[in-house]
Amino acid sequence: MTMNVIGYAAPSAKAELSSYNFVRRDPRSDDVVIEILYCGICHSDVHHARDDWNNTTFPVVPGHEIIGLVKSVGPDVTHFKQGDTVGVGCMVDSCQNCKACKQGLEQYCIEGATLTFNSKDRQDGLFTYGGYSEKIIVPENFVLRIPDGLNLKGAASLLCAGITTWSPLRHWDVKQESNVGVIGLGGLGHIALKLAKGLGANVTLFSRSPGKEQDARRLGADDVVISTDTVQMTSVNNKFDLIIDTVPYIHDINPYIASLSLNGTLVMVGFLGNLEPTLNTVPLVMGRKSVVGSVIGGIAETQELLDFCGEHGITSDIENIKIQDVNEAYERMLKSDVK
Amino acid sequence: MTMNVIGYAAPSAKAELSSYNFVRRDPRSDDVVIEILYCGICHSDVHHARDDWNNTTFPVVPGHEIIGLVKSVGPDVTHFKQGDTVGVGCMVDSCQNCKACKQGLEQYCIEGATLTFNSKDRQDGLFTYGGYSEKIIVPENFVLRIPDGLNLKGAASLLCAGITTWSPLRHWDVKQESNVGVIGLGGLGHIALKLAKGLGANVTLFSRSPGKEQDARRLGADDVVISTDTVQMTSVNNKFDLIIDTVPYIHDINPYIASLSLNGTLVMVGFLGNLEPTLNTVPLVMGRKSVVGSVIGGIAETQELLDFCGEHGITSDIENIKIQDVNEAYERMLKSDVK
Repeated sequence: MTMNVIGYAAPSAKAELSSYNFVRRDPRSDDVVIEILYCGICHSDVHHARDDWNNTTFPVVPGHEIIGLVKSVGPDVTHFKQGDTVGVGCMVDSCQNCKACKQGLEQYCIEGATLTFNSKDRQDGLFTYGGYSEKIIVPENFVLRIPDGLNLKGAASLLCAGITTWSPLRHWDVKQESNVGVIGLGGLGHIALKLAKGLGANVTLFSRSPGKEQDARRLGADDVVISTDTVQMTSVNNKFDLIIDTVPYIHDINPYIASLSLNGTLVMVGFLGNLEPTLNTVPLVMGRKSVVGSVIGGIAETQELLDFCGEHGITSDIENIKIQDVNEAYERMLKSDVK
Repeated sequence: MTMNVIGYAAPSAKAELSSYNFVRRDPRSDDVVIEILYCGICHSDVHHARDDWNNTTFPVVPGHEIIGLVKSVGPDVTHFKQGDTVGVGCMVDSCQNCKACKQGLEQYCIEGATLTFNSKDRQDGLFTYGGYSEKIIVPENFVLRIPDGLNLKGAASLLCAGITTWSPLRHWDVKQESNVGVIGLGGLGHIALKLAKGLGANVTLFSRSPGKEQDARRLGADDVVISTDTVQMTSVNNKFDLIIDTVPYIHDINPYIASLSLNGTLVMVGFLGNLEPTLNTVPLVMGRKSVVGSVIGGIAETQELLDFCGEHGITSDIENIKIQDVNEAYERMLKSDVK
């Protein structure tokens, strides 16, 4: 019953990805065997493939924005059957028992969630392999239903970029009349605009480059503020209930704090590291403003997102490539030469 | 009807406070004339008297933790009558019309609240003079009722230190079973312990000095963590729902972030300035933890605090001094030689 699978793996930090034959574990009673149709490419795929975070076990098969069809299910699986269209995101398991897991926040599992690739399976201790492959085997609790009618290629990145912005939108209760700012118009930012607009919010894109206005408006932005223009920045002082900061590199967040309303929240979903220049506490104290972080989202929240996107016809803007072109795609992504 | 008043004023940033005769405005129809019994000494009194923030208009009569008796009321005053025991805190007016004021958050008034001293009256433009004086005239909307039975000397600082910690305790919904940390055991910290305990929380004091344990436990701390002891700090990892950081000088908040629970909040009420060392976003992102600030509290919240303290018999620990000894008291406060 052990399953031979062909995937695409980075054999080492210095080598390009190439075809790789490997074995998936025997399916367990609660497992869903999924034939993969599409898999998104995420910045973190590149970071892992190149061992940027010094934590990659090679060879690594990246990919955690997976769309596929159910091929078979274990005897204890109750929510999926052969032929269902399903998704798998960044996590494939968690302790299921801690305070976070019990709240449906598996991404904050106190023991650490089992990630879809480059992570250790909680039962057999083997490394997980991701979605750049033919098939994947995932416990039912971590499999998502894809609503009928949703464009499957565009749905893949909802499972990472989408949920990363959806979770804060929902946690901080964005709704009609909310003023939402989005910093950055990459993979995270563009879907954040669509989702915030879908929730009925008044949405503003902060961007360094004036050239993005047309794209931003098409994606749902009501306004675009050029963040290097102090007059434009001043015009939105005290405006936003929530700002989603998707910028993945070091940058000054102080100018955005000024644009938060009383009780407003700036949530960082892109940058991991030390804030430079340093954060000034005066506007935080004088306006009860928050700086907070957030990572992906829980399984129930992800299902909620997929259902919402099904109802509203929201998917990511994507380019479809063949797996054989993944190395070139990585280079283009690093140069921001992608739509 | 204009009122001659004797107070204590700093004539300049370099001079000691001394007796000062000045004129209070004519009472308006909504004003309460208060004969002052006691007035607390706050760190910000010293900062203003010495012009540390470069915004003092001299001579300045400090004092914004005022307890007194109603001497007379204007014809439109409906909630107070002669002889009532009342309090006045940090604010004596606000626009009453902005989003913040309409929510009872006058401290965040978009136009800026009128402060009890060293501020411009909204109607006549004259500078306000504080509680180091015989009498004060305050619009009814900014006068607080002091519950029967509350020790009046100990109630004074509830109007600044008390509300500064009460507002975050209430805003972040501290209750039975909440885990609350308090950093620092000064004027703010000691009342924070009492109030958090009064709300039924499990309360921990963070302190640099082991010598404060006995005091802390008497004031309501269930535990004391020595913040320089990494073993003790590690033992409270992921524990606190809310940490109130009362430290008024620059300090590293990163070690405390580690002790916040998932969704936990560190609220800064003491330090105004740039965070150094810089804040690391990783634990914020990986635990949806917040860094936020808060300043004093609204009038309705302050009344709620006073009523709560009346029910629970909570007042500040104080030393009673004569106004003639205020200069010496300032020196002792700056040396932390006060109880």
